[in-house]
Formats: sequence, C-alpha cells, structure tokens
Amino acid sequence: MAPERDLAAEFRAGNVRGLARAITLVEQRDPSVRHLLESLADRIRRPYVLGFTGAPGTGKSTLVDGVVRLLRGWDLSVAVIAVDPNSPYSGGAILGDRIRMQRHALDPRVFIRSMGARGHLGGVSVASREAIRLMGAFGFDFVLLETVGVGQSELEVAAIADTTLVVLTPGLGDGVQMIKAGIMEIADVFVVNKADLPGAQRTVQEIRNMLNMGPKQAWRPQIVQTVASSGDGLDDLYEAVDRHRTHQEASGEARAQEEARLKDEAADLVAEWARGEARRLLDSDPPLARRLLEDRTPYAAAEEMLRQRGGSLVPEAARAEG
Amino acid sequence: MAPERDLAAEFRAGNVRGLARAITLVEQRDPSVRHLLESLADRIRRPYVLGFTGAPGTGKSTLVDGVVRLLRGWDLSVAVIAVDPNSPYSGGAILGDRIRMQRHALDPRVFIRSMGARGHLGGVSVASREAIRLMGAFGFDFVLLETVGVGQSELEVAAIADTTLVVLTPGLGDGVQMIKAGIMEIADVFVVNKADLPGAQRTVQEIRNMLNMGPKQAWRPQIVQTVASSGDGLDDLYEAVDRHRTHQEASGEARAQEEARLKDEAADLVAEWARGEARRLLDSDPPLARRLLEDRTPYAAAEEMLRQRGGSLVPEAARAEG
Repeated sequence: MAPERDLAAEFRAGNVRGLARAITLVEQRDPSVRHLLESLADRIRRPYVLGFTGAPGTGKSTLVDGVVRLLRGWDLSVAVIAVDPNSPYSGGAILGDRIRMQRHALDPRVFIRSMGARGHLGGVSVASREAIRLMGAFGFDFVLLETVGVGQSELEVAAIADTTLVVLTPGLGDGVQMIKAGIMEIADVFVVNKADLPGAQRTVQEIRNMLNMGPKQAWRPQIVQTVASSGDGLDDLYEAVDRHRTHQEASGEARAQEEARLKDEAADLVAEWARGEARRLLDSDPPLARRLLEDRTPYAAAEEMLRQRGGSLVPEAARAEG
Repeated sequence: MAPERDLAAEFRAGNVRGLARAITLVEQRDPSVRHLLESLADRIRRPYVLGFTGAPGTGKSTLVDGVVRLLRGWDLSVAVIAVDPNSPYSGGAILGDRIRMQRHALDPRVFIRSMGARGHLGGVSVASREAIRLMGAFGFDFVLLETVGVGQSELEVAAIADTTLVVLTPGLGDGVQMIKAGIMEIADVFVVNKADLPGAQRTVQEIRNMLNMGPKQAWRPQIVQTVASSGDGLDDLYEAVDRHRTHQEASGEARAQEEARLKDEAADLVAEWARGEARRLLDSDPPLARRLLEDRTPYAAAEEMLRQRGGSLVPEAARAEG
C-alpha cells in the first residue's frame, strides 16, 4: 500500500501521529503529500487561521496559550504552528514548545508544532500553508500561527492568516515599534497585552491616533487590551476576531483572499517545479555549467534551459527582448 | 537611447550615481539590468566578498567600518551592502547608514548601500548577488556584506560571501550563541570583537574546543581578536581573510563555489520567470482561478498551466505520478 494511503487512514482514524508525519513530509517537500491530500479530498476544509505577530517579549506565546484554553472551553479543536524563522530545525524541538506540549499532552484536540523557516524554499509560507491544509483535513477548527523570535515573517504570516493580530505592550518603544516596517497595514486586531502595566491607555490612544491618520478602510482594525497571564481580555480578543471574520465573509473579502492565497500557492508550485528541473539540467549538462563560468552572469544559461524545454514559461517580454 | 546604455556610460565614466540607480533597478527586478550587464560584459569581474554575520550588539558595523578604513589605506576600493532583513525599505534610508555615508561622503572609492530583504523574492540573495555583480563591473575591489539586525539571513550571507566572518563578543551567552542554528559550519573566520572586555580569552578557547570536537575540514576556521572601536586586531583579521582566500583559490574551492553560486542564480531565474508566467496565466484565465477554489489545493491548476505551455519544466517524477 502506498504510504500516503496509510497516512490517509490515520487521518480518518483521528490518529494525530499521522498528522505529525504528514507535516514532516511537507517540510521535506515530499511529493506524496499531494496524493495524501487527493485521498482526503472529501475532508479538505480550511480551518480558521489566526496569525499572531509582534516583537519578542510582548507575550505572544502566553496569549496563544490563553486562546487555546478559550477555544477548548467551547469544545473547539486547535492546532498551533510556532514558526521560528531563525531555526533550521523543525518538529517541535524547541524548549518552550516542549513545555507547552506537555501541558496539553492529554488533550487530543490540541496539536502544537514548531516549524523552522530557514532553509525552506519560500520561508514560512510554502510549508505552513500545506500544514494548515493538512490540519484542516484532520479536522481542526482553528489554527493559531505564531512567529517565534523576530524576522521577516510578519508579512508572510499576514498573507496566510484569516485574521492577523499584532501584539504590543504598553510603553515598548512608544509608537516607533509600529511605524517600523508597515505593521499598521497588516493588523486586523491590535492586542495591547500586559495591559495591567502603566501606559496601556496611552498605547491604545496612540494606535487610535495612527488609525485616524491613515486612509479609511472597509475594516477598521479593533484594539483590545489583554493580560494574557491572567486571561483578562481574552473574551474581548475573541469577539474582535469574530467581528472581523463576520465582516470578511459578508464583504466577500474572505473568498477573495482565499483565491489570492491559492493563486500564490499555484504560482509558487510552478516556480518550485521549474527550479528543480533547472537544477537537474545544470547538474547533468557540464557545457551549460561551463558557460555560466564564462559568462559570469546567469541569463544566457537560464534561457538556454528554457530553449531546451521548448521555450515555454518564459515571459513574453523576456522573449521579445532576448 | 535605451536607459541601460546611459547607465553603462555612467559606469564607464565612474559615476557612482549610475551604480546606485542600477541597484535600484535590481531591487525592482527590472529586466533592463540584464542588458546593462551585457553592455558591461568586458568589465564584469567578481569583487572579493566578505560576509559579516553575528548577533546584534557584537559591533559588526564598527568592524565593517574598520575594514573599510584598512582597505582604503591600501588604496583598494570598497562597497558595503547593509542588508536589513526586517526592512521593506531600501536605498540607504536607515539612520546608521546615513551617518556612515556622511563619513565617507568625500571618498568616491567607498560606496555604502542598504538593501531591505523583506518583500524581495528570494530574500537577501537574489538582489544582493546582482548588486555585487554591478559593484564588480563598476570596479570595486571588495564588497563587505553586512546583516543589520537578526533574522534568517546568516545562511544566505554565507552562500554569497567568499569569506564568511562570524562576529562574537566575550561572554555573550557563553557558547550557546554559536551552537544555535549551525553558525559553526558557516564561519571561515571567527572574530571575537570587543576583545578588551573580560572573558575574551575564554571565548577564544570555547571556539577552539568546538572546532576540535567538530569534523576535520580542509579549511580550519581562524580565530582573531579585535577591538573594532580602536582598530586593534584588524590587521590580524585581514590576514586571516587573506589566508582563507589563498586556501580557497589553491584548493579549487573558490571556482567550485563560483559555479555553485551561478547555478543557484540560473535556477532562481528560471523559477522567477515561471512564477511570473503562472501569475499572468492565473490572472487572465477565470476558469482556472475558479478551479483553485473548487479544489482547495493548488496542484491541479499548477499542472494545467504547465499543460497549456507544453508541459515543459515539470520534473519527470511529477509527470509520471500525475
């Protein structure tokens, strides 16, 4: 029996180890994932994805843990993806995660997984989009996507999540933290965490002022205050998420985003296939490799590869110029 | 006259603004860069590229500045690329760089440029490899590639640089900092900066111990101690770099690396063309986009695009399975 059949059976049986193994295949870019998903076509449905971004020290992990507890209280199942853009490792190896996993170890409807972004083609996006699809097919209602550490992953998380939460703390950098790197535009919900610290109200006011200065948009980002360590404000947080979800669905934005995400994925897939084929050609064609060293630019060799393959997938413009 | 002809003339005249404009075109993935490089084919030679990586606070920027002064003292020309993986901005807009640029403003043989990695396809790699090629064609002898902040860029810098320097400071995390994320494997030279602080000798010893535990390699990474702020140890640093350079050239490793880098670039270029073509197809073919939403996976649409284009550039394996 093909291994993906076994995995599909494990999915149908609700065996979480099957999910873990399938995600490992995703990280290895194993083509059998595709056949697994085809065998599970009747089960594919997108879970609702919350993306958590924010500077280290803002309490993201504690907040994510709080949301897990909240959702479990309503008997909803939750998977967590902790993305560590600095780590080449994956598979739940980082310390904080192991501690968190232990806490939920007896609950089969909570699944926590670390994914390293480094070294993966396309960084966070490619592997986590597939992992989310698998989690949905497995039956999870929610996926919480959390970035560990800092890095270039905020925009990627926002591109994947249905609702993006930007987590801040009072006083931390006083506004500067947000202006930096266009965080304002990606937030659907601002979470002022550690709101029992002095300055919380001022931080809320600063965010409000910024929103007032910006262009008017169909969805006005909500601002909620939480104390993740005590659970205060988590209901408000969920209510803001739910309001955003309702707005996106009613406005048609949810469907438009889903289409945009799938287009991204399809284009990335074509690019990945093309890159793999190009690598094989370069490794099996010594004269082509020599030409690269003579030219000291990659253009002519890249075109030569396309010519060998019938010239397709070259943009019209490049062909006209070439 | 085509704009790339103007730019080529500016390169030949040694007008640094032409270089700055060309790098902006690179960042915008403007296809005319290719024609610029073709017009400059006689001038293309690779500058020697030093990559500086290390945690924030280790004094990388001061060290880079020191190396700039050292090389200028020998009348060698130097370009600096400061890569900020967290910034979507580029073009020398960050504060620290503006200060540094002012210091060298009157020296036409020093060129400093910030490049944001975020939002660029392929992160640091794609744009900076082209920028380095342009800097070489302009006539720069050395390029110093420096990562600003933290992120997933260490491995990318190591893949681009001829000699990779990993910068550490005494006591900072005591060894843990290195074990993390496989930094050991990318270092050609370890720089213990701020070596006037207590613990420098112990840090050197820790690195030595780690190197002794690791597998024996053709090049044994050198360890140098510097005080970048005073310039102490910069001669040693350069000597270690030069020894590495000599070793790489004598062993044939330099040529092998150059070939590997050009293969990477050619494969990335093919992938980029394929992605662009796929995007155009998806945007111009509503039934294809609808199919994505029905399938909720990208595979069938990606294959359909390849079929429409003659099926080329699909890996054999995927075709056999499909």
